[in-house]
Amino acid sequence: MTSPAPTASAEAQSAPGVTRDHRSGPARRDAEATKAAIVRACRHLLARHAHTDITLKAVAERAGVSAPLILKYFGNKDALFSQVMNFEADVEAFLDAPLEDLGRHMVRHLLIGQSEHGADPILRIVFAPLHGEQGDILRANFRTQVSDRLTECLHGPDAGLRAELAVSLLLGLGVMYGIARGPHVRSAPIEEITERYGPAVQAQLTPGTLTG
Amino acid sequence: MTSPAPTASAEAQSAPGVTRDHRSGPARRDAEATKAAIVRACRHLLARHAHTDITLKAVAERAGVSAPLILKYFGNKDALFSQVMNFEADVEAFLDAPLEDLGRHMVRHLLIGQSEHGADPILRIVFAPLHGEQGDILRANFRTQVSDRLTECLHGPDAGLRAELAVSLLLGLGVMYGIARGPHVRSAPIEEITERYGPAVQAQLTPGTLTG
Repeated sequence: MTSPAPTASAEAQSAPGVTRDHRSGPARRDAEATKAAIVRACRHLLARHAHTDITLKAVAERAGVSAPLILKYFGNKDALFSQVMNFEADVEAFLDAPLEDLGRHMVRHLLIGQSEHGADPILRIVFAPLHGEQGDILRANFRTQVSDRLTECLHGPDAGLRAELAVSLLLGLGVMYGIARGPHVRSAPIEEITERYGPAVQAQLTPGTLTG
Repeated sequence: MTSPAPTASAEAQSAPGVTRDHRSGPARRDAEATKAAIVRACRHLLARHAHTDITLKAVAERAGVSAPLILKYFGNKDALFSQVMNFEADVEAFLDAPLEDLGRHMVRHLLIGQSEHGADPILRIVFAPLHGEQGDILRANFRTQVSDRLTECLHGPDAGLRAELAVSLLLGLGVMYGIARGPHVRSAPIEEITERYGPAVQAQLTPGTLTG
C-alpha cells in the first residue's frame, strides 16, 4: 500500500488558480494544487446542497478559478462530482500502515487531515441523504472502496463486520471533530487522541492482541 | 435518570393523524403519536434540505397530517424546528443506565432505535452544515445536552475529552448503520454488536476497569 497522491505540503505551497501546465515540474505541481482546490470547493458545496442545485459557476467561485478551467481539468460537472464521490485516492494513504499499527495510523491520519486541511478521507459519506440517487453511488463507493478494502487487510472471522465497526469509529471521530466541533477533541494534542482512540480501532482490526 | 418519554410501543400502535385529544387516555396517546410523526417528518426533511427551504406544507404532507394541526401542536415552524434541533428528550433514555453498563446500554439503545424506528438519539448533528446559523444552534445544543451531560456522569481526569470520544463512537455507529448502511452492521444481531462495540465505549467512560 503506497501513497502516490500529491503531498499535502505541495498543495499548501501552491496558490490555486495559477496554472502553467505547459511546463514541467512546478507547473505540474501547480496544476495538481488547482485540481485539489476545485475538489475541495466541490466537497464543501456537496456537504450543503443537493448536487442538482450546485452550478459549475459556484464551484469555480469558491475555488477561485474560472469555470472553463474546471471543464479543462475534469471534462464536465458530472465527472467532477464522480471524482469527489470517490474514496479511492484518499483511502490509499489512509490504509498505508502495517496492520499491527493501522488503528493508530488511521486515527492520526484523519486528525491531521481535519486539523491541517479541513479534509477527512471518509467523512463525506454522511452527506449521502442529500443527494438522492447520487447518494446511493456514494454508498456503493464507500462500501467497495473503504469497508471492503479494509476487510481485505484483515485476518480471522467476521472480518467484514469488524472492518465496518473500525470504520464506524473513524467516521464518528470525523463527525465529532469536523461537524459537531467538540472543543475537547479539537484542543487535545493529536497524539493524545491517537493513544486514547487508536486502541479501540485496533481492537476491531486485530482482536485478542494487546492494544493498550 | 428516568425515562418519561412516551414509549416506542405506544407510538407504533397509534396511527398518526388520528387525533381525539378532547378525550383522555387513548386520545392523549394518539396526540403524542401524531406529534412524534410530525417530528419524524421534520427530521427527515432537515437531513435533506436547508431549513429555510422546508415548508410547513412539506412537513404536513410527509407526516400525513394537516398544516393547521402542526400549528396547533407546535405554534409555528420555528418552534417545531427548535424542538427537532433539541436533544434533551432523546438523551434522557439514552443515558438511563448505571455507569458501569452505560457503554453497552448506549450501543443497544442506538441500534434498537435505528433498526426499529429509523431514529437515532444523536445522529442529526451530522446535518449541521446544511443549516447555516441554525446549524450553530444544533452544535451548541449537542454540546450542552449530549457531550456535557455525559461528562457530568463521569469520574476522574479528562472527563470532557473522554465523553466526546465516547460520543464519537456512538455517532460513528449511527452513520454506519443509518447513512452508509453497512450490510454487516445491519445484518448482525444487536446483541453481537453491543458485545463487540460496547466495551470500546465503556473504556472511555470508565478507563482502567475491565471492559471485555
